[in-house]
Amino acid sequence: MEERNKVKEKMKNLCTRCGYQEVKTPTFEKLKLFKLKSGEEIVEDIYKFEDKGGRGLALRPELTAPIMRFYSNELKSRTKPIKLFYFSNCFRYEQPQKGRYREFWQFGTEILGGKTLEADAEVISLADSILRELNLEFDLKIGHLGVIRELLKSEDIEEDAQDKIMSVMDKEDVEELKTVLNSYGITKEIKNKLIKLFGLEGEPREILDKAGKILEGNKSVLGRLSDLDKLIDLLDYYGVSDFSLDLGIARGLDYYTGIVFEAFVPGLGAQNQVCGGGSYEFPEFVEGGFKSTGFAIGFDRIMDALEIQGEKIQSRPRSMAYIVPVSEEFREESMKVLREARKSFPAEIDLQNRGIGAQLSHINKLEIPYAILIGEEEVKKDKVSLKDMKTGDQDLMELKDAINKIKSKYKEYDIRY
Amino acid sequence: MEERNKVKEKMKNLCTRCGYQEVKTPTFEKLKLFKLKSGEEIVEDIYKFEDKGGRGLALRPELTAPIMRFYSNELKSRTKPIKLFYFSNCFRYEQPQKGRYREFWQFGTEILGGKTLEADAEVISLADSILRELNLEFDLKIGHLGVIRELLKSEDIEEDAQDKIMSVMDKEDVEELKTVLNSYGITKEIKNKLIKLFGLEGEPREILDKAGKILEGNKSVLGRLSDLDKLIDLLDYYGVSDFSLDLGIARGLDYYTGIVFEAFVPGLGAQNQVCGGGSYEFPEFVEGGFKSTGFAIGFDRIMDALEIQGEKIQSRPRSMAYIVPVSEEFREESMKVLREARKSFPAEIDLQNRGIGAQLSHINKLEIPYAILIGEEEVKKDKVSLKDMKTGDQDLMELKDAINKIKSKYKEYDIRY
Repeated sequence: MEERNKVKEKMKNLCTRCGYQEVKTPTFEKLKLFKLKSGEEIVEDIYKFEDKGGRGLALRPELTAPIMRFYSNELKSRTKPIKLFYFSNCFRYEQPQKGRYREFWQFGTEILGGKTLEADAEVISLADSILRELNLEFDLKIGHLGVIRELLKSEDIEEDAQDKIMSVMDKEDVEELKTVLNSYGITKEIKNKLIKLFGLEGEPREILDKAGKILEGNKSVLGRLSDLDKLIDLLDYYGVSDFSLDLGIARGLDYYTGIVFEAFVPGLGAQNQVCGGGSYEFPEFVEGGFKSTGFAIGFDRIMDALEIQGEKIQSRPRSMAYIVPVSEEFREESMKVLREARKSFPAEIDLQNRGIGAQLSHINKLEIPYAILIGEEEVKKDKVSLKDMKTGDQDLMELKDAINKIKSKYKEYDIRY
Repeated sequence: MEERNKVKEKMKNLCTRCGYQEVKTPTFEKLKLFKLKSGEEIVEDIYKFEDKGGRGLALRPELTAPIMRFYSNELKSRTKPIKLFYFSNCFRYEQPQKGRYREFWQFGTEILGGKTLEADAEVISLADSILRELNLEFDLKIGHLGVIRELLKSEDIEEDAQDKIMSVMDKEDVEELKTVLNSYGITKEIKNKLIKLFGLEGEPREILDKAGKILEGNKSVLGRLSDLDKLIDLLDYYGVSDFSLDLGIARGLDYYTGIVFEAFVPGLGAQNQVCGGGSYEFPEFVEGGFKSTGFAIGFDRIMDALEIQGEKIQSRPRSMAYIVPVSEEFREESMKVLREARKSFPAEIDLQNRGIGAQLSHINKLEIPYAILIGEEEVKKDKVSLKDMKTGDQDLMELKDAINKIKSKYKEYDIRY
């Protein structure tokens, strides 16, 4: 938990620095909300139940739909854009495996009403800086759902078919792509364009140039490419330049519309996507549509990734000192020492009326660095015995000196931590 | 959220100072766990459901049973006692009202294997210091389930009848108590003793003296009174003396056994209990029984209580500065300023390509104290215009000076916060 809290705090601090405010929504929502908005794939895996009133409820499988519902109930009158972040658990009934749990934690942000490329660039740079702050090695991929969608739309291909084709493009299997394109009876010209787009490689600007040539003449698609061009400039202003362009990103959720992005950590195995996001729309909640943008980070996978990449977060002992009454008659004196010690660092006392030997063995098991012993001699001389549990050295000294010594050791932990 | 986080941090810090470690358990458990251990009253209100595999599951209505389950799966081999704390949400299908929500948050601690009065005293003093640290006015009541129970047991009264009698004593209605005692055919002698115990008033030691006289000759009950006597000493060592003794506390959960305590905040209305705890046993999980002790604080009620008692926690503006590109051509320069500013305090930039008037009105609505304007003059002179949004004053200055000025203002917030 200490490691998780530390990572969470880093994420929170970065969001706070950028003016995002934390939000928490209820753990369950009406089932309808997710049926409407979260995409078929997710709805399959929802934990659903009825309450005593017969209402269909669901444990949230993701956070964006609940936040839009919350916006629509509570935040509508606020000045836009609204910048939020969350750290919350989600639930999906999937086969558990490394990096995929039935209850999992997501850290994410949303810019509600953030309909510009400026807003897209801000969330991408925030995701990027969170992953960097954690010293993670990762690959960032950016795409634009509009490119392929506009191209298919210009050929009057229906939305269901668009969805199918895009989800196949996401899989990076050119043969499957060809099969699907044939099955929908796509013209040869468009088919060739799609396959060429699919295979593009190089630096982001190169890909844009090549895509521009492939798509020459199709004005609305070229508009999406120039969005990407402007986004690259904006990301550059934020200091984000280490990413690749991937026009095949489809994302799993039905509500995405424009710029999308994903981050992957090499070495995480099959579940190696640690972050996903992009711009989306929930027209149900706001008349005339309401563009927003955001991302979610898979918190459990991040913790796995940090472990794999050897980014061990130094953990402190649970206490710096353990007060040892040599026998029960010294409990009152020992408690005075405990209360004094707790003003400066985490400290504990025997709660089991154990003998001194059993207490010292307990302290060793807890890996607490110091014991402060209180017995007859100590009380008589108004001092304490400070025992260094590592070296075994024990010295009679003023309580004040013992506390100062432990305090300075405690500060070292704080710096390393 | 900011206020809630601040209060939560205070609670966490106190627990950490005492060597408690944070634990999180899953949101749902097997329904069986709660049927077994959480008491009838709670089981009625559980949100239950089946997963796809037909397993009976339940959203946790409380945390102690899950933590004992977790102990039994994961922590059994650790040296005892194990000191844990949690901050988690629970779920009960009850009529929502002020201070009672269907999803609510509890902050609590457990000393697993803490079977001594020393452990009881430690958790009571920790609950007391948490409520004190928050500057809350509250009444702390301490009791011992064993007193009444042993007395009833010595008359061979069955456990079901014991439970019923104790729950009526908890309600503080002497007439109802008389009716129940009559219905169980309790002897006149015991009936009189119970009614006398029920009506005891005075300082803790006075109550113990009077109870000792009422219960003279009953050795096992007197043993429980001397537990309370020793507990009062131990609490004194922790500096806890402001509490009352109440031999009628019954607590709602079936697993409590010995010392129990509750804290109430005057003025909170019907739902005025903010904390409850005591020592308990889960023999199912550990052979030969396993005494533990702990408490839970109703976090939402604490937030209500703080509001009612006027303990307003100073909240900071979401950002200290908002960077205003006077027109789009100055975005690149503005972004450089933004990145510099974010090194020192929370800062934002326009994401909507708004004109300068619309930006300033947005900043006012957000109550952000400073605007930093970047336009032609500023870029030419390599300076920025710092606008104090409260006074309206605007000055051209070095970026460094603007940042220092805002930074020192930010520190003031930190101190007041």
